[in-house]
Amino acid sequence: MTDKRNFTSIVEDLPTAIPFVGPEAIERRVGRTFDARLGANESAFGVSLKALEAMRDEASRVAWYNDPENHDLRGAIASHHGVGAAQIVVGAGIDDLLGLAVRLFAEPGQPIVASQGAYATFVYHVHGYGCEPVTHPYRDDRNDLEALAAAATASDAPLLYVSNPDNPAGTWVEASDLEALIDRLPETCTLLLDEAYAEFAPASAIPTMSVNPRVIRFRTFSKAHGMAGLRVGYAICDEQVALGFDKIRLHFGVNRIAQAGALASLEDETFIRTVVRRVEKGRAHYARIGTSLDLSTLPSATNFVTFDAGSRTRAESILSSLQDRGVFVRKPSEPPLDRCFRVTVGTDPERDVFEKTLTELVRSGA
Amino acid sequence: MTDKRNFTSIVEDLPTAIPFVGPEAIERRVGRTFDARLGANESAFGVSLKALEAMRDEASRVAWYNDPENHDLRGAIASHHGVGAAQIVVGAGIDDLLGLAVRLFAEPGQPIVASQGAYATFVYHVHGYGCEPVTHPYRDDRNDLEALAAAATASDAPLLYVSNPDNPAGTWVEASDLEALIDRLPETCTLLLDEAYAEFAPASAIPTMSVNPRVIRFRTFSKAHGMAGLRVGYAICDEQVALGFDKIRLHFGVNRIAQAGALASLEDETFIRTVVRRVEKGRAHYARIGTSLDLSTLPSATNFVTFDAGSRTRAESILSSLQDRGVFVRKPSEPPLDRCFRVTVGTDPERDVFEKTLTELVRSGA
Repeated sequence: MTDKRNFTSIVEDLPTAIPFVGPEAIERRVGRTFDARLGANESAFGVSLKALEAMRDEASRVAWYNDPENHDLRGAIASHHGVGAAQIVVGAGIDDLLGLAVRLFAEPGQPIVASQGAYATFVYHVHGYGCEPVTHPYRDDRNDLEALAAAATASDAPLLYVSNPDNPAGTWVEASDLEALIDRLPETCTLLLDEAYAEFAPASAIPTMSVNPRVIRFRTFSKAHGMAGLRVGYAICDEQVALGFDKIRLHFGVNRIAQAGALASLEDETFIRTVVRRVEKGRAHYARIGTSLDLSTLPSATNFVTFDAGSRTRAESILSSLQDRGVFVRKPSEPPLDRCFRVTVGTDPERDVFEKTLTELVRSGA
Repeated sequence: MTDKRNFTSIVEDLPTAIPFVGPEAIERRVGRTFDARLGANESAFGVSLKALEAMRDEASRVAWYNDPENHDLRGAIASHHGVGAAQIVVGAGIDDLLGLAVRLFAEPGQPIVASQGAYATFVYHVHGYGCEPVTHPYRDDRNDLEALAAAATASDAPLLYVSNPDNPAGTWVEASDLEALIDRLPETCTLLLDEAYAEFAPASAIPTMSVNPRVIRFRTFSKAHGMAGLRVGYAICDEQVALGFDKIRLHFGVNRIAQAGALASLEDETFIRTVVRRVEKGRAHYARIGTSLDLSTLPSATNFVTFDAGSRTRAESILSSLQDRGVFVRKPSEPPLDRCFRVTVGTDPERDVFEKTLTELVRSGA
């Protein structure tokens, strides 16, 4: 056997880089455990006790296959949003569904439009299916909807990706602006609207829930629900689009415990409201930290806050110094946001660790 | 918006049929719960208590992302088989990994070889990536390795799929025959060797664990480990092939609880030995039932037994009558095995329900 692995031409051309190195992997590499894990936008406020109970109960039934139709969970999600169950597709996180969306709509070689520095896993899928990213920079640290629509039209892209609230910026655009964007898109372009952080956003940022055949909205149990490690996300879309997902998705992809946990969490609205309030309090804390250290923070409608370090060099230096001191944060890699670092809202003690560590760093000249 | 959904040409051409309708879905459609769920080759003997404890414990940590490197589980699997961790790829069941394997090696339009009536989810992926199945019938109810190798050579297929022990037949071929097959394959063809039922097979059916760059072996926690609903499988392959999987796999695809449960189950070897013994006892019971009813059974190295009804019509009639009486079984859809129905080894009470029901049916002329 030679070195040639017989891979397809698309795979041969792919880089070996992966979108995110997990916190545990970083810990293994640096040889220490983080004191404050504030880099992956996980929820610091845990999971609903009702969901915990449901997961523990379901664990005794894992010998049986999970329901490939995700029937009960899909029905509950549909009721929650006031849409039909046939308009819901459940997947192993939004990551899974984004990959399927690329596969559904884009032929190899086609352009796909997103902001420069958009969610890395989406870009991973764009490359993974042999498509070409067409990007436009953030403007005023927000998705530049007009420029993105123009890019989609000019490139005849089958897909445009927008996250709102945005990851990695944390900022948001108004629902009315999104609706204007949708009206402006060519009929051959589908908008992938990633709303992973919707629960944390002002109501004015979330379009009303009328299913549009040219829009797929993505939601997740990873953020407000505190279930990042469970892997459950869903798409809200036209019924015909949902049937398309059914033609290619991994039907048994969302395990029994994940389905049961997500269902129970969806029903625990009190828990979610509490999480959202705690996140709001934490964001305000981070804004105060920024003010006190003369580091401006971007407005955030998510469970993280983006700190503006003024330059890429300084942002990288602060990030690396924080990590050396046991505080895990991440930063955007592309300009103009590469001048920033991004901090997940932690618990009170975690935020205190972050505040103390960052303050020491900045006071000592970082 | 017109009816056109802008799907790719591959997706447009796909059927809406899915490989397996889940037992719960069948129950919802027939409006009753099965008394004996013996159709999906799930384990009737549940899950390791150590694994159950590990899953319940891990449930409290789902707010954190799972480890995308599956580091601990991968290490344990590698030790278990005496290979390197870099030769293990963990996925959400063998189903997930089979899809990735097609995507890694096969361009749209290329032929992929398998037995006629081979595992339906594999064929789903072959179609899903726009490839063309090239099939050869089972011979003496076994994979016809010589014919499959000849078909792979003649069609210049990048992939040949063989399950051993076989699903849906339950039969097996000897390791020496598989090794001869591998020697015979063109250098441009990779063998996908699905060993989902390996734990139930005679040692002589399982090739020694020397990693071959032209072979990918697939194992699962769904069968002997009793974790079908947890979705964990793995590939054992050349390190360069594993790096290929890393370029396209869903890195966060196997959730925290699944990783923790599988790891604990792997360490509970006593449990697995007990399951294997109980399955052997159940297979012998089914063989006796067959003899008493003049229905021959195929030899099985799996956790199910294939009953030969003599004709497709009779097999379908028996299957449908069993289902009407609350006994869920499945049957192969393609000749020559379409004359058979396939029954998972159940617990003692489940096998008694099956025996009683089948006996009544056959005695009344089915």
